[in-house]
Amino acid sequence: MRKIEHIGIAVKNLEASNQLFEKIFGNPPYKEEEVINEGVKTSFFMNGPNKIELLEATNPESPIAKFLDKKGEGIHHIAFDVENIEKEIQRLKGEGFIVLNETPKKGADNKLVAFLHPKGTNGVLIELCQEIQ
Amino acid sequence: MRKIEHIGIAVKNLEASNQLFEKIFGNPPYKEEEVINEGVKTSFFMNGPNKIELLEATNPESPIAKFLDKKGEGIHHIAFDVENIEKEIQRLKGEGFIVLNETPKKGADNKLVAFLHPKGTNGVLIELCQEIQ
Repeated sequence: MRKIEHIGIAVKNLEASNQLFEKIFGNPPYKEEEVINEGVKTSFFMNGPNKIELLEATNPESPIAKFLDKKGEGIHHIAFDVENIEKEIQRLKGEGFIVLNETPKKGADNKLVAFLHPKGTNGVLIELCQEIQ
Repeated sequence: MRKIEHIGIAVKNLEASNQLFEKIFGNPPYKEEEVINEGVKTSFFMNGPNKIELLEATNPESPIAKFLDKKGEGIHHIAFDVENIEKEIQRLKGEGFIVLNETPKKGADNKLVAFLHPKGTNGVLIELCQEIQ
């Protein structure tokens, strides 16, 4: 857990939210990317050593569509940058956390990712992510 | 907006959550602090250039008690580090954001803070914070 890599925010309309967050950060997103197997379109803003990821659902089965239905727009997850994701998964399992992806999967922004179940983390969806070399 | 200063997480029991997040970060909180005028007890964990703040309500009128009643435990706000909070408040007001504290107030961890209304920011409660010199 080296830093907050990014905060993921669920939004209804990526285009409108890009304009909103551009006003906050003073710069447009540096990247937009669709992750087909997650059913999301994403955009990324740089903020010093951290990033903000906006996520719009591309189909009603997307986890983001379900989140929006249940909770509305807002913060969806925190992602922590890790050096060795497989080691970190084993360490956290050993501490009693429920890891949703025992084998890391390919996420947006050239990352291997794995999530911890929010039931074990005070309701916070935590993502571990490691840059793919 | 220089970086994510911290993420604030609303919890029911600070002591239990301190133990949980100590397992995640590998270190105990570096500070615990009560902010009487906000009705909260807080603890802070370092994570590289960022921090995680846990917040427990100390009375039923605390904004954190209301958040827990409505949404349950989870991420409560994102705080961005700013160089000059008064300038940033004026800039964001000019961009059309609703600033909840036109005059910054004293927050936890030796900071001047001001919040943006989440209605104008896709449901995300954003805090601006500036270190008090």
